[in-house]
Amino acid sequence: MTTIDEIQLIRFPIFTEPSAQGILRVFEALSMPFGVQRIFSVHANAGGLRGQHAHRKCTQLLVCVSGQVSVFCDDAEHTAHFTLHPQSDALLLPAGIWSTQCYEIDSSSLVVFCDYPYDEADYIRDFEVFSKWKTNK
Amino acid sequence: MTTIDEIQLIRFPIFTEPSAQGILRVFEALSMPFGVQRIFSVHANAGGLRGQHAHRKCTQLLVCVSGQVSVFCDDAEHTAHFTLHPQSDALLLPAGIWSTQCYEIDSSSLVVFCDYPYDEADYIRDFEVFSKWKTNK
Repeated sequence: MTTIDEIQLIRFPIFTEPSAQGILRVFEALSMPFGVQRIFSVHANAGGLRGQHAHRKCTQLLVCVSGQVSVFCDDAEHTAHFTLHPQSDALLLPAGIWSTQCYEIDSSSLVVFCDYPYDEADYIRDFEVFSKWKTNK
Repeated sequence: MTTIDEIQLIRFPIFTEPSAQGILRVFEALSMPFGVQRIFSVHANAGGLRGQHAHRKCTQLLVCVSGQVSVFCDDAEHTAHFTLHPQSDALLLPAGIWSTQCYEIDSSSLVVFCDYPYDEADYIRDFEVFSKWKTNK
């Protein structure tokens, strides 16, 4: 049974450039922890709440490319909290973890790499169902 | 010789959600116009200028996930201009086009998918060299 101890922070190259030229982050396919089957981005303002579900099989890599996003994780026994921003590590979230993302400032963006294509059956959207699923595994 | 007429706008699914829940954009691997070898993100504030180079072989797909970014394209004969934002289409930029990206508002982010891994030899960073390369092709 996956626990929050299996969540990892992964460092990808970050190049911070002088003046207004910005922050460049690079994700070479060969450096990714899995074969990427799906990518999605979420753009939200302060107070936006996303996630609030778990995946049965899908592992995800979360990268904050603008603003700041708090990620709350729960394995039905313990919780963990991570803060992501454009200079922070990426968060490798294994399958079997309940996760909620809170967008902390306006114009925050998360890019998420997934090792599975979209499958609604992979989602658990009810925390009680998730908790029972974890107990029975 | 690639011309600006070969630049394409590509629509990926965009789900706009009520209240502060934000904008979700989805890029399934099978929907991508090429096999993705590299992804990079750039985060910059208003006035940030990036690009100002061409690629000999690398095709790129540009997606603005926050803020607004102007993309100026030049094939050494004609120019074209595109404005990208989180609700706009993605821009498929073939190899052989000189491109400059101007970050128009603070906290703008571009995610770029590439069909080649990083190779410095693939970059042309001098417009005169680019122009001669285009003429001789």
